[in-house]
Amino acid sequence: MKRYLETIKSADAVRRVLDQVRRIEDEEYLPAHSCRDRITTRPVFAQRSNPPFLCSAMDGYATSFAKTLEADLTLPVTLTLGFDAFPLNTGDPLPNTTDAVIMVEEVERSDAGITIRKPAYLWQNVRMIGEDIIEGDMLFPANHKIRTLDTGMFLSAGITHVHVRRKPSLLVIPTGKELIDIYDNPSQDPEAHRLVDFNSYLLVNMAEEIGFHAEKSKILITKKELSSTVHQASQEFDVIIINAGSSAGSEDFTEGVIRELGTLIFHGVSMMPGKPTLFGVVNGKPVFGIPGYPVSATTSFKVFLEPLCEKLLATTVNKEFVSCLTPYKIPSRIGIEEILRVNLIDKGDQFYAFPLPRGASIYSSLANADGLIRVPENIEGFDEGESITCELLRNKSELNKRTHIIGSHDLSLGILRDMLKNRFPDQDLISTHVGSMSGIMAFRKGITDLCTTHVLDENDNVYNINVVKRYVPERNWLLVNIAKRTQGLIVQKGNPKSLSGIVDIAKNGVTFVNRQIGSGTRILLDAMLKEKGVSKDLIKGYEREESSHNAIAILVREGVADTGIAIHAVARAFSLGFIPLAEEDYDLLITKEFSETTRFQSLLALIRSDEFKNRLIEVGGYNTEGTGEIKYVYEVQ
Amino acid sequence: MKRYLETIKSADAVRRVLDQVRRIEDEEYLPAHSCRDRITTRPVFAQRSNPPFLCSAMDGYATSFAKTLEADLTLPVTLTLGFDAFPLNTGDPLPNTTDAVIMVEEVERSDAGITIRKPAYLWQNVRMIGEDIIEGDMLFPANHKIRTLDTGMFLSAGITHVHVRRKPSLLVIPTGKELIDIYDNPSQDPEAHRLVDFNSYLLVNMAEEIGFHAEKSKILITKKELSSTVHQASQEFDVIIINAGSSAGSEDFTEGVIRELGTLIFHGVSMMPGKPTLFGVVNGKPVFGIPGYPVSATTSFKVFLEPLCEKLLATTVNKEFVSCLTPYKIPSRIGIEEILRVNLIDKGDQFYAFPLPRGASIYSSLANADGLIRVPENIEGFDEGESITCELLRNKSELNKRTHIIGSHDLSLGILRDMLKNRFPDQDLISTHVGSMSGIMAFRKGITDLCTTHVLDENDNVYNINVVKRYVPERNWLLVNIAKRTQGLIVQKGNPKSLSGIVDIAKNGVTFVNRQIGSGTRILLDAMLKEKGVSKDLIKGYEREESSHNAIAILVREGVADTGIAIHAVARAFSLGFIPLAEEDYDLLITKEFSETTRFQSLLALIRSDEFKNRLIEVGGYNTEGTGEIKYVYEVQ
Repeated sequence: MKRYLETIKSADAVRRVLDQVRRIEDEEYLPAHSCRDRITTRPVFAQRSNPPFLCSAMDGYATSFAKTLEADLTLPVTLTLGFDAFPLNTGDPLPNTTDAVIMVEEVERSDAGITIRKPAYLWQNVRMIGEDIIEGDMLFPANHKIRTLDTGMFLSAGITHVHVRRKPSLLVIPTGKELIDIYDNPSQDPEAHRLVDFNSYLLVNMAEEIGFHAEKSKILITKKELSSTVHQASQEFDVIIINAGSSAGSEDFTEGVIRELGTLIFHGVSMMPGKPTLFGVVNGKPVFGIPGYPVSATTSFKVFLEPLCEKLLATTVNKEFVSCLTPYKIPSRIGIEEILRVNLIDKGDQFYAFPLPRGASIYSSLANADGLIRVPENIEGFDEGESITCELLRNKSELNKRTHIIGSHDLSLGILRDMLKNRFPDQDLISTHVGSMSGIMAFRKGITDLCTTHVLDENDNVYNINVVKRYVPERNWLLVNIAKRTQGLIVQKGNPKSLSGIVDIAKNGVTFVNRQIGSGTRILLDAMLKEKGVSKDLIKGYEREESSHNAIAILVREGVADTGIAIHAVARAFSLGFIPLAEEDYDLLITKEFSETTRFQSLLALIRSDEFKNRLIEVGGYNTEGTGEIKYVYEVQ
Repeated sequence: MKRYLETIKSADAVRRVLDQVRRIEDEEYLPAHSCRDRITTRPVFAQRSNPPFLCSAMDGYATSFAKTLEADLTLPVTLTLGFDAFPLNTGDPLPNTTDAVIMVEEVERSDAGITIRKPAYLWQNVRMIGEDIIEGDMLFPANHKIRTLDTGMFLSAGITHVHVRRKPSLLVIPTGKELIDIYDNPSQDPEAHRLVDFNSYLLVNMAEEIGFHAEKSKILITKKELSSTVHQASQEFDVIIINAGSSAGSEDFTEGVIRELGTLIFHGVSMMPGKPTLFGVVNGKPVFGIPGYPVSATTSFKVFLEPLCEKLLATTVNKEFVSCLTPYKIPSRIGIEEILRVNLIDKGDQFYAFPLPRGASIYSSLANADGLIRVPENIEGFDEGESITCELLRNKSELNKRTHIIGSHDLSLGILRDMLKNRFPDQDLISTHVGSMSGIMAFRKGITDLCTTHVLDENDNVYNINVVKRYVPERNWLLVNIAKRTQGLIVQKGNPKSLSGIVDIAKNGVTFVNRQIGSGTRILLDAMLKEKGVSKDLIKGYEREESSHNAIAILVREGVADTGIAIHAVARAFSLGFIPLAEEDYDLLITKEFSETTRFQSLLALIRSDEFKNRLIEVGGYNTEGTGEIKYVYEVQ
């Protein structure tokens, strides 16, 4: 059985990588206006002054100030055009004998010339040579990253071309027989039972974004192909990434190939995701084996390739950090560094960081994340309310233009988001799906001003009102109905197991798939089971929890389970059978304070619009009679 | 005499512009991996689940968990390969009859198959269908700006192509007979008495950066050319910028052309720079006339084209703002909005904003700026210590990695900056040149920890020590010598006016150019004049102040003045004559606190290096005997 060579800390691993590479010395000599985001290799000195000669700062007439000294309101002086006075526009050079410019607005034109009624002074309205830039001044040092505004500086200083550092070149090699290139297989047939290679496209994009010139090879399958490609690439590229094959499976050739062609430096980093990262040197070139799970691949790239790029280019990769609070205890294994993906909720001057699913295979946890938090290996995670540092994955300015909902998921949130972004492109609606009860708890703690919920109170069969009153007695809030929706059993087409109601899920031969604890749907299920006296132990699959309606539908459609509880809308979306069980209120819980903001008023207007109701009806399974109604207003006594 | 049509407030002007344009409806359908920074036009739904089938989460063997239930440490179970157990790698689909995966590390291989010593459980190491992404989920709404990480999301959801908004197209038309295209005239002969057109290259870059597809036309000179180009462009482009000709000079055709071809909406905005901006509509297309001064052009672009781009693309242009304090009173004219360029000094948790030169012709004030501050038209500027909002022109992360020096300028600072950026590419050394005395005042107020100074105390002929003791008695500080340097009279080659010392600058027929009040050089001059009993009134040009050594040299070389005082180094750099007057100490004043930081220790090591001394000697006019010595340590009693 193969094992990792060793497992080292990420900081040590980064140091070993950087020890193997040197700054790129090759230069390119490019037109100055095309150098945006490139790095200077030499200090840049002004080639000419700006302006390079005395010139007019105004539209008017150049003259010698000495000739105007007698001018007075009652005793005007007339200057002869072409002799004493010379018309010129802003930017025109001053004729040799002149040293002042009189503005066009301050003269009277006549056949004889121009008449003025007050004297000019030396250098009046004259731009001096070098007023802006002086020939020989150092404009930028070496290793300066050129911004758009800097390109203007070059041209105004007479610099047509600039020496910049050659971009480091990088080749991404996707490997694995399970992969397909989706552009070669556009049919997208999931029956092909192959995984789409998107890592290599993504890694190329990430590399280009920080300053590499990056390419990808075709998907390689055999060790021989990989070996010859790495050998060849080590002569043509500055950096090579092999993805994946860095683990310990039967087809994980990467380590062997590096050992054969060069030197393996490390295999295994005590970080998560990204542990199976390996690194070696072939023909003097750094070669990475990075893991196949997309979150691991991305994490590994950020941990290793960003500092590598900084060293090769002698620059810094722009990153922004914010400090934030943990909304609850976040455990993490001691002895391994963990890189969490989080959503940030902006609560006034403070961000709260909500961890997203931690699995390395859940790419959406990265794409939906606002930032990354590194949990050092020597701690067991964070306590509730700890202040931690987060690397942003979005522009900070976006974060405070978002309305953030925590709670239960529903398709209507997607529709609202789409409508909101359409009317107000600078805003956004973000929802964190933690289920109704966790949402209410976050609302109670003051972490969110908005929560979506559908929780039945078993005692009186009322949705939301009583439960929220019980758990949130100390804030002022109100409940707005988004829609009523029908919950029921999702079954395969034609209902092959002949299910007719909730008791049937305990039948022999029926596999069920459950929702997570704290979700409104789970509460509904457990209430129904209790009412009907059905034992949970009889339900095969009761322990298997999924966290969305759609997940239930997919698992039923694919035959992994026979049934599960979800809303009618998803049954329709996936063309599955549906046995209605209950109509429930899907409500929006808002603090009184937030309900008075214009941002909420815009949202409420969208909820009350015909477009929203129509789109819900089109999706199916919704009752919009009460949509937009304020159902309940609670005030602290 | 022509006048502006009217002058309106910038906010009203922006509103009028936006009233004339509509969101672009045209779409492009692009490969998903090439959509970075583009804007979605439709909500994007997952086309397939990820993973699309049950697959292995580990390298190992797929089996049916039911067949493993008897396995035990002492009673192992053996599974037959190809019958009970199927080898597979991470990501491989699960064979039909299997529902669990046993890790490769947990089996013993034998000829008979694999032997296991503990039972598996249902779905062990199996990735469920849709665990990451569920078919039909809305991944992004319309009007979402696609980030690099988002492109990975598309591909993993089976989305090969995405509908994005067509980029709005923009044409920049440079006009004016005084302009040259530097790429057509690479000789850079300043005698050509023409100005380099860099605005159009810059505006194209700025437009591309925020999302336009931008092009420039050739430089146009006649009204006829302009008219036909605008007519043609109004059929091919979404937006047209004419630069310049928006003022009131004899060749300012822009207003006339717009009136002839379409409708003029406004001419003149009560903002500075950027007042002569004009706007109209030709053939339904927005046409801007923006001013020729580069700072005005850039300001106008930011004020009008950024919101226009946001409306056309239904997106937001990313901007970052910080709050900062004014280090001193900043006056501004009431009745006109002013857009200041500022340097930001990071003092712990607080930025101080130092205004850069305000002239619209000083492009370096923009390229060197860290941010922009808008002074509303209804106030007379800011008081000292006011908290104001600043739009950043650099990444915020750069700002706190800079060492900021305020005080007197010297070429050595450029050398130090270049050396620092070479060793530590993520750092930078920024100097704000306000002269020695203003630097000492900023140091006294605690606004800066570093100040460069060369101030003579007339009473005892000692440089810096006594003056700083007098003005900064309440901080602990030390003085480090950067170098001794020789000040003298800069004269034209061959010394045509036969100057031999300071008294000669008052000679008849000699034009002098002075340095600004508060600069060490001015203090030296005034001390020498006093000593020699020379009256200032006799010096022609005494009132003309420049703020750098180089400026003095350029004006003497170009014959605008006969002489001025500057350091030997610039006389050498410009091949001018030099009459030595005094050797002075150019010192670095540091707070004790900052002197103990590693950042300062690195800087000091650079100052003390042979490379630095050698580069100073190579420049000429420096005495490096005391370079790097701590001259004086002051502690508050």
